[in-house]
Amino acid sequence: MKADLDRLMAEREIDALLILPGENEDPYRTYLSNGTRSSGMVIKKRGQPPVLVVNGMEVDEAARSGLEVHSIDEFEYSVLLRVHGGDLSATYRECYRRIFEHFDVRGRLALYGVSDLNTALRTVEALKAGMGDRIELVTEPVRDTIFDRAYETKDAGELALLREVARRTSAVMRATRDWLAAHRASDGVVLGADGSPLTIGDVKRFVRSQLFEQGLEDPEGMIFAQGRDAAVPHSTGQDDQPLRLGETIVFDLFPRLPGGYFHDMTRTWCIGYAPPEIQADYDTVREAFERAVEMCRVGIATNEVQDMVCQFFEERGHPTVLSAPGTSEGYVHSLAHGLGLNIHEAPYFPTRITKYWLQHGNVFTIEPGLYYPERGYGIRIEDTVHLSESGALEILTDCPYDLVIELAG
Amino acid sequence: MKADLDRLMAEREIDALLILPGENEDPYRTYLSNGTRSSGMVIKKRGQPPVLVVNGMEVDEAARSGLEVHSIDEFEYSVLLRVHGGDLSATYRECYRRIFEHFDVRGRLALYGVSDLNTALRTVEALKAGMGDRIELVTEPVRDTIFDRAYETKDAGELALLREVARRTSAVMRATRDWLAAHRASDGVVLGADGSPLTIGDVKRFVRSQLFEQGLEDPEGMIFAQGRDAAVPHSTGQDDQPLRLGETIVFDLFPRLPGGYFHDMTRTWCIGYAPPEIQADYDTVREAFERAVEMCRVGIATNEVQDMVCQFFEERGHPTVLSAPGTSEGYVHSLAHGLGLNIHEAPYFPTRITKYWLQHGNVFTIEPGLYYPERGYGIRIEDTVHLSESGALEILTDCPYDLVIELAG
Repeated sequence: MKADLDRLMAEREIDALLILPGENEDPYRTYLSNGTRSSGMVIKKRGQPPVLVVNGMEVDEAARSGLEVHSIDEFEYSVLLRVHGGDLSATYRECYRRIFEHFDVRGRLALYGVSDLNTALRTVEALKAGMGDRIELVTEPVRDTIFDRAYETKDAGELALLREVARRTSAVMRATRDWLAAHRASDGVVLGADGSPLTIGDVKRFVRSQLFEQGLEDPEGMIFAQGRDAAVPHSTGQDDQPLRLGETIVFDLFPRLPGGYFHDMTRTWCIGYAPPEIQADYDTVREAFERAVEMCRVGIATNEVQDMVCQFFEERGHPTVLSAPGTSEGYVHSLAHGLGLNIHEAPYFPTRITKYWLQHGNVFTIEPGLYYPERGYGIRIEDTVHLSESGALEILTDCPYDLVIELAG
Repeated sequence: MKADLDRLMAEREIDALLILPGENEDPYRTYLSNGTRSSGMVIKKRGQPPVLVVNGMEVDEAARSGLEVHSIDEFEYSVLLRVHGGDLSATYRECYRRIFEHFDVRGRLALYGVSDLNTALRTVEALKAGMGDRIELVTEPVRDTIFDRAYETKDAGELALLREVARRTSAVMRATRDWLAAHRASDGVVLGADGSPLTIGDVKRFVRSQLFEQGLEDPEGMIFAQGRDAAVPHSTGQDDQPLRLGETIVFDLFPRLPGGYFHDMTRTWCIGYAPPEIQADYDTVREAFERAVEMCRVGIATNEVQDMVCQFFEERGHPTVLSAPGTSEGYVHSLAHGLGLNIHEAPYFPTRITKYWLQHGNVFTIEPGLYYPERGYGIRIEDTVHLSESGALEILTDCPYDLVIELAG
C-alpha cells in the first residue's frame, strides 16, 4: 500500500521519485495525488509527502489532493519557453533544474509514469545533461518496481472503493443474466422483443446501459464472445452475431469507478442447454476455481497456485502452459492478477517463476479457463477476491456460477 | 496524415519506428493499427506497412486491422521468459533481437508510444545492450515528431469520424441548453422538478445520459463550472453547487467516439440574465473568435493568429500571455490546438513562437477566452474547425452562441 513507499525507497536506496508531467491518464500520478487528476509532475522525496507541480490552470483541482501544490509558472516555465524560442528540451532542462534546486532533489532518482515515450526520452536526456552532478537516474526491474510492490496490498480506503466497484459490477452481471433469461428462442437463436434475432451488439448495449446506471466507466471495453470466439480469451465478440443456444458465451466485465479502481469478473453461460462435453469441462474449470480459492493463503508463492491449477488440468487430459508454453488449446493463460487503479497489477501469477507471495491486503482475480477453438468453445470463471486480515479469502464478486440460462419463453 | 509518415521518416533519416507493447491505451498504436486495439508492439519500416506483434490471445482482434500480425510466441516469448527465470529484461533483450532479425530491422530506430516509463527505460537499456551493432536509437524534438507532423492533417476516413463526433457532441450541448431552459428559478437559483435547487451534479448527470444516448465516451470528463470556478479554465466545477442566475457558466465538452477521435467545444452561458460587464466581455470574446476564424487560412503561422488575438484583447484593456506570460487574469491560454485521436495534438498555437503553419486538412479548435477570478467570472467560446481543400474554414461544431439562457418558468 501507499504507506509502504518510503520503506521500499529505503530498501532500494531511492532518494526521490518523479512522475513526469503529461496529458494522458497516469495511474501513478492518480495514486500519489490521492485520486485527483492533473497533468502535472509529482515529486516525492523519501520520508516526505509528494508535492505536485502543475499547470497554473490546474492548481485548484490539484489542491483537492490535500498535497502541497505549486504552479509551474512559479518556476517561470512560460517565460523560459519563450526565451528558448519554443525549444522544449532546453526549457525542460532549465525548468527541472530550478524545480530540483527549489525542492532540494538530489541523489538516486527513479522515474515512473505512463508517458509519451519520445517526450520522456528527451526529458531523460535533459536531466542527464543538466543535472548529472546532482542526480543519478535509476531504473527498476520490470514488474518489480516500488510501485508494483506498493500496489500489491490495499489500504482501508482502497478496499472500500474495491468493494463498491465489486458490488456495482456484480449487479450489472446479474441484471444481464436475468434480462437474457426473460427472452425466448426460435430455430436455435434467441429472439428480441420485436421477434428478430437478439445480437451480441444488442446485449452489449444493454450492458452499457446498466454500467451507466451504476455510474461505472468501461474504458477497456468488455468481452461478450460466443462459440469459437469464446475460445480466444481476448476476442471481444462480434456485434452482428445472433445469440445461439447451446454455445458457450464468455462474458468478461472489467469496469471501474470514475477515475479509478477496477473490478474484474467473468461468467460462462450456455443459453437453453449445455452439450455434455461443455458441461463436463465447465465442471472441471469450476473445480479448478474452488481448488485455487482453497489454496490462496498468506505466504503461498503465487506460481504454486498457478502450477497446481496446471497440474490439475493436465491430470484431466488438458494441455496447459506448464508443459506447453504458448499453447492456444487447453489452459492458455495465467490464473490471476492483482488489480486496483490498474486492471492488471501485482501480484502476478506466473507459471513456475517464484516472484510474488500472497499477503494480507492483496486484491486479485482467480480465473481458470479452458479453451478449444477447433471445437468451438471456451470457458472461464473469474471472481475478484481479497485476502483479509483474518487470513480468510473474501470473494468480492457476488454472482451465481450456473452455466445454463434457461429461457422463460 | 498517415500517408505522410514515409516522407517524414525519409526527411529525418529514420529507418524504422517501434511502438512499444503495453496495456495502457496508446493513440500511436491505435493510429498505426487502423483503429484496432491490442497491447502489442508495432514495427514500421520506412516504405513498408506496419506489422503487429501481439500476445497470442490478441491475434484475432489485431487481424481486424488488415495488417500483418504475428504472435509473440512465434518468437518463443513464453519459453524465453521461463528460461530466464522470469527476468523480463533478459527476455526482452533476446526477444527483440529475434524479432528485429526476423523483420530485418536495422539502422536509425525511433521509439514512440504512451508507455510505462520504467518498463520503457529498461527496454531501451535492453535494446542498447543487445543490439547496439544493428540499431541506433534516435529521439525527436518534443511536439515536432514525425507523428506530431502526421497528426496535423486528417485524411478522408478520419474526417468522416471527426464530422460524426462533431454532430453527436453538438447535439448533446444543444440538448443540455434546451433542458436547462425548461427549468424555472426562485431566489436566484434554478430549481429542479422536485422544487429543490438544481445542482451542477444534476446537470452533469443529464449530460452523461445524453453522451450515453449518443454513444460517446467521456474519458477526460467535462467542465461545467460557474462563477469563480469558470474563471479557472481547468476547474471542472463543483457537483454540490446550485446553478445561480446571472453568473457565467463555462461548459466545455470533449468526448470521443468509442476508441478514438475527439470533439472539443465550449459554450459560456448566463442563466436568466447577464450583468452588463459580463455581456461586454462576452461580446469581446465573440469578436476575437470571429477574427480568428477570419484569419485561419492556409499558410498562416499559428502563432500569428494567437498573437493577433492577444493584441486584440490588450487593445481592449485585458492582460494576456503575450505581454504577461503566466498571467492568471485576462486571456491566459493559447487560442487553439489540433485534435484527433488525441484531445490535444498538432498544430499547436504558441505565443510568439513560429513552429506550425496552417494546412489543408488541419482540424483544430478556436477557443478565445477571458478570465477574472477576482471578479468571479470566466468566458470561453470554442468550436472545432476544419481547414478544407477549398481553403475555406469549415466549422464542424453546430450550436448557437447566445450567452443568456432564458428560463421558461
